This record gives sequence, structure tokens and C-alpha cells, in this order.
Amino acid sequence: MPDTLPHPQADASLGPLAGLRILELGHFVAAPFATRLLGDLGAEIIKVEPPGGDPVRQWGARHQGHAPWWSVHARNKRCITLDLKQPEARQIVLDLVQHCDALVENFRPGQLEKMGLGRDALLAARPGLVIGRISGYGQDGPYRDKPAFGVIGEAIGGLRYLTDQPPGTSDLPPVRVGISLGDSVAGIYAALGVVAALWRRDNRQAGTGRGGEVDVALTESVFSLLEGALPEYGTLGSIRQPAGGGIATAAPTNAYRARDGIWVLIAANSEPLFRRLTALMGQPGLVEDPRFVGNQQRVRNVADLDAIITAWTATMDGLDLERRLDEAGIPSTRAFTVADCATDPQFLARGMVREVQDPLHGPVLHPGVVPRVDGAVPPPRSTGPDIGADNAAVLGELLGKTPREIAALKDAGVI
Amino acid sequence: MPDTLPHPQADASLGPLAGLRILELGHFVAAPFATRLLGDLGAEIIKVEPPGGDPVRQWGARHQGHAPWWSVHARNKRCITLDLKQPEARQIVLDLVQHCDALVENFRPGQLEKMGLGRDALLAARPGLVIGRISGYGQDGPYRDKPAFGVIGEAIGGLRYLTDQPPGTSDLPPVRVGISLGDSVAGIYAALGVVAALWRRDNRQAGTGRGGEVDVALTESVFSLLEGALPEYGTLGSIRQPAGGGIATAAPTNAYRARDGIWVLIAANSEPLFRRLTALMGQPGLVEDPRFVGNQQRVRNVADLDAIITAWTATMDGLDLERRLDEAGIPSTRAFTVADCATDPQFLARGMVREVQDPLHGPVLHPGVVPRVDGAVPPPRSTGPDIGADNAAVLGELLGKTPREIAALKDAGVI
Repeated sequence: MPDTLPHPQADASLGPLAGLRILELGHFVAAPFATRLLGDLGAEIIKVEPPGGDPVRQWGARHQGHAPWWSVHARNKRCITLDLKQPEARQIVLDLVQHCDALVENFRPGQLEKMGLGRDALLAARPGLVIGRISGYGQDGPYRDKPAFGVIGEAIGGLRYLTDQPPGTSDLPPVRVGISLGDSVAGIYAALGVVAALWRRDNRQAGTGRGGEVDVALTESVFSLLEGALPEYGTLGSIRQPAGGGIATAAPTNAYRARDGIWVLIAANSEPLFRRLTALMGQPGLVEDPRFVGNQQRVRNVADLDAIITAWTATMDGLDLERRLDEAGIPSTRAFTVADCATDPQFLARGMVREVQDPLHGPVLHPGVVPRVDGAVPPPRSTGPDIGADNAAVLGELLGKTPREIAALKDAGVI
Repeated sequence: MPDTLPHPQADASLGPLAGLRILELGHFVAAPFATRLLGDLGAEIIKVEPPGGDPVRQWGARHQGHAPWWSVHARNKRCITLDLKQPEARQIVLDLVQHCDALVENFRPGQLEKMGLGRDALLAARPGLVIGRISGYGQDGPYRDKPAFGVIGEAIGGLRYLTDQPPGTSDLPPVRVGISLGDSVAGIYAALGVVAALWRRDNRQAGTGRGGEVDVALTESVFSLLEGALPEYGTLGSIRQPAGGGIATAAPTNAYRARDGIWVLIAANSEPLFRRLTALMGQPGLVEDPRFVGNQQRVRNVADLDAIITAWTATMDGLDLERRLDEAGIPSTRAFTVADCATDPQFLARGMVREVQDPLHGPVLHPGVVPRVDGAVPPPRSTGPDIGADNAAVLGELLGKTPREIAALKDAGVI
């Protein structure tokens, strides 16, 4: 039987996870991103920070002294402070989880255990708790204690090696995907695992009422994206190689530079699309050029082909090129900057870019909710709050602390 | 009230989603990856293919005439064939969904509707069905009908622009992340959305018993990963730029080439780590070099700094360099190839690389399950099956078709 709990009043319009309450002991990107996704889907999120705040509050560019990212990264969250080194703070966490369905954390493995907040202690306080844990390398194994850095984890997961020009074509280092990809993907996986474990706990057919532990490693999250690379290596001994801007098995598909320097992606490797492209280029004879007959030949002679296409794209500006390709029905796009994303008619029509009022910034652009459920495009319920903004409300509502008790916790540096 | 159904016997050891049955109308990467994740977590998956099979069966390298990727991509699935252009096949889908909890598809928007299998038809047949839909641009909006290609969607999501050398440093095109990143991330989001909607349907507290629609766009999935880029653009007008192998706000952190050409990642941008690195390099004076005092100065003079580090890394082989950095406690790793992943002690200890017997290939290396729930590292229950391998079993078990009826469907080209 599940332990029954006073749940927040589920307002179905908030999203499919309305009615769930989740405690975040997170910092930086991975765990806070996981809870942001869960909050976007309607769960109530309580984020615990040290009294000095999550360092990510200062990350990225500043506007009026504050990081705009925070407005999004901590949206739909209540923020409370706890100095987890203090025993009273530990007890408050144990009290809080009795009112929560899940906890998501990304301390280094073993840290929570040292604080007396390991899996066993948490499940003893609340047997129905689902504990989502994100780390660099996982909660066990010989390397679990290594320090986790996103760029390191992405390289161990096999992604950095593949994000490069083909071997021998450039002396520049392999490129970092310009975002915290490993952290973000680990965050999505953690959200998935937490909700799956909650379904197991709560479902009417066979719900166990029990919580459990979800263990997500950044390295493994990245490694999981490598398609057939592992089975191909295992059966054939072949080692997947980087292919620069192209794809090793298809041509033409690459980014081509326009006269004004804008890169335009063109994916025209099927026969009909290649025919359309050569017609648009005014060089229909290319489809009969023995170097380019069929995808296999085109792949073999891709350098020649890309040079011919580039000579054409370099004769016009990027927007003009993009429009002409589009009119010809050839899959294509310029490489969007964030400014392009922010003004894209499709993103705007789908509520993926929306202006939100933030007390710290005034209007801020927020990305919408992924995935979209039942067509709803809910606006954020709140923007990222100040440090400890919800201390009194959360400790009062859930734990019955009086203003005097809360003041005493503050004086003692517990919150 | 939910409609009650004959559910597969839930064997909890299969994973947290044991007891769920999910129909896949998918092809290529995104939808099949979503259901692979759900199957990895214990759900029963029934994949529907056209009688000719999913084209992805032929993708990638071949071993003994078959693509090793398929062994992984379709593991834990039952495969049946249906020619959805035929009315009888449509009816079979409607009959099947009455025995399923969810359906995951990645047809172009509007295609299922044309076949008489749109949202309304499916929910009429099974009000509790959760329909997970993955497309390039989403189910509505002005661009919903554009053809979806992964490389195009990733560029529209803002990723390709950021995966490049810094502006002005290279004439080579921005690099494609060497994997189907957009498809895979959309697949994870779809899995999350489907399970969230199933929690909403099934949970004891307030379950609605109703299904619904989960709408995931590849472009939006990628765009969701851009951290603070959108709010920074909105408040400051700044457009996030690519930073090559480094990070725009931290130094040193990059990939550095060893004597034998191996790239080694070094992340030593904090003061203690930079001190350790310079000591290991035998150039402790660098910490007092005015160009390199503090992260901010180092970022400003990153080209000088990276040149100095590269001159040092070029004096030794990659494995030697990696070992020395590791012993000095500096976050670092060589850029793993898939061969490195396949032999990594941590991956092996965590069951992330395991040999699986496949009837088509003999031993094949399979990646493990992400996320890991309650410490379990379940082996695949099955490898990717032949086309239509489960036609008789599925149509017999679930719909009560006799061998004679099944043979007739086959003769008519319905299956």
C-alpha cells in the first residue's frame, strides 16, 4: 500500500504531472534541468540551495545584474535554502520528503550518504520516494568518484570524437557541441526514469506503492545516442569516424556557404532531390556525370560534388539561397542563430518562443514546453525566484514551522 | 474510469514499465528509439512495419548481410507487418490499440489522419490510449507539412550554428554532431511525454483514465537544449556564438593533440586545477604570468595559453598524457572512440557494454539501459526480429485470428 499524502490540489490545466511534488537537491545544469522539465509538465518543484545560492545563478551573460538564464532554468520552482552540512537541515530534508513524491539530485556519488541523506535514509523517511540521481559516471563502479565535468563526460561517451572534420582534413580540435549537451540529455533521462518509477508506484493495475532509485550517468546518457556504432564495432571491428559537416553514407548533404558567409544546409541525397537541385543550379547534366550517378558514386566523389555546389551557393546571399531551395522543394535551411529561432514563424505559432514578465528583467523570452501534451502551450507559472524566496511559505505550509521558528533557523544559518 | 484491459502479466523484474503494452507505427530513428527506451524499461512493444520492412533495417554497416544496428534498435520488440494503405490493415490497428496503452508514431503530420488513424479515430477505439507523435516541426503551425530531415531540424533548432569553430577561424563547414542527435533527443522526450500522460491516466490519487496526445517536434527538442541563449538574446540582444573546442567563458578547457594525434580533453579552468596543470607541465611560473592570472585573463588570452599547452601535449603520446593528467587529479580524458567505450572499465562494470547472442550475427555488443532503475542491469529480452516475425503470435493472441485467417491476410498483402 502506498503511504497517503496531502497532495497539492491537482489542477489538470498545469500539465499531466499536476499533483506531484518533487524536491530538487540540485545545482548547475543536469538535476535542475530534469526538474525544470517535470515542472513544465505540471509537477510542483521545491529547489533546495545552499544559503549562498546555486552557482548557476551567476552563469552566462548578465542583464541588470542577473543572469537571464535563471529566469528559465528555475521557472515553475519554489526556492528554499538549506545548509546541508548542519544536522537540522538534514532533518528538514527528511521531513520535507515525507510530503514529496520524488527527489532529484546531482551531488557527487557518496556525498548525500555522507550527509546522512543516502538512499536508505530517504526511503526510511518516505518509502514511496523516487530518488533520481544524476552523476558523471553513475552511482557505482570503479570510476564513480571521479570528478564530473560535462566536456569530459561527453568525450567519454564517444561524442567528441565524432564531432569533428574527417580524419586528416583539419588541424583544429574536435568541436564541442556549443551547449551542455551531456548534462541536458542526462536531465531528460532522469525525468523519464523518475516518471517511469512513479507510474510503477502509483498505477491502479499493479502499483507497488514503493519508490526506488533512478541512476543516470552523464557518460552513459551520451553513449546511448551512438546509434549502431557499438554493435557495428562488435561484429565488424569498425570504428565510427567523424564526417565533418556531412554524413558518411549520403551525398550531397552538408552545410554550404553563401556569398554573405551564411551557412545553408542542403539535404538532397535522394535521386529526385538531387535532380531538383541540379536543375535549380542550372547544371542538370550533373545527374548523368558518372561521378554522381547514384548515392554511392556521389559519396565516393563527395569532395568534387561539394565543391561544385559551393561554387554555386557562393554566388548569392544566404536568405536568397534559402528561399530558392525552399521554392524548389529541396530540404534546406540556413543554420539558425538564436535570433533566427526567436523570430521563426513556426516556433512562434507553436508557443515555443514567448515573452514572459520577470520581476528582475521585465520582458524575457522563454522557450516553450517540450513535449506538448494535448495541444496545451502553458505559460510559465513563475520565473526563477530569488534565493530563499519560498523559505517561509514552504517550511510553514508543509512542516508547520512558525515565523519565529523560521527566523531562528535563519539566525542559526540553517536556511 | 479507465477502460480495463487484459494486460500482459507484469513481471516487475523487466523494469518499471512492465505491464504496459505499446504499439509503434514508427520508422527510421525517432519513434523506434522512443519505443526502444520504453521497452528497455519493461514495456511490451509491438512494432508495425510495412510488408517490406522499416528501411532502417538496412542502415549502417552490414554483417552477414544484416545491419548490426537493428539488433539494438529493435530489441525487446515484437515485429508485425501491416500495409496501412489497405482498409483491413487500418481495422487491425484499431483492434490492436484496444489492447494497448500507448501508440508512438512518426509519420509526417496528417498522414495517419489520411489513413483514417488520426487522433479522433484512435481515441474513439480506445479512450485510454496515449498517442505519442514525433515529427520534424510539430503537428500544427505553418511549417508542419515540410519534409523532416534530421540535419535540417538540428540546424533550425540552433545547434548546427553553435557546433563550429569560432567565427573567422576556419573555412570548413560547421560540424554535424556525428549522430542523429535531433531524432534521438526527440525520441527521449516522446518517451517522457508518453509516460507522463500514462501517469496522469493511471495514478490512484486522481487518474483520469483518459489518454491523450503527446506532440514532439524534432526542431523544438533541439531548441530546448540551448540553455540561456534565448533569454540572453531577449534581454541583451546577444547572439550565442560557437566556441570551437573550447568554452567561451572558461580557460583552459579544450581538446589538445598528443604526439600520436590523439585528442585529449583537459578541463583545468579553476585556480587549483590550473596550478596543478602548470606544475605538471613543469611551468609553474605560468600562474603568475599576467596573461593567465585568473579565469578572465586566461579567457582573454586563450590562444596563447592553448598554444603553450599544445606545445607540451605534443611531446608525448595520448595514453601517456592521459595517465599523467589523471595521476595529477586534473579532469581529462582522451576523446573516446567507440572502441574505447567498448573496453572502458566503468562502462563494463555498469553493464553498459554487454555481449548478446543474436541469431543473425552470433555475439553482438549491446549498450545497456539508461536510466538504470533500482540498480538493475537487465539484459535485452530479445534482439531485433525478422520482418513480420510476430505476425501469427500477436494477431493470434490479441485479436484471436486463426492460422487460416492470418494466411489469408498474408495472401491479400495486408500483412
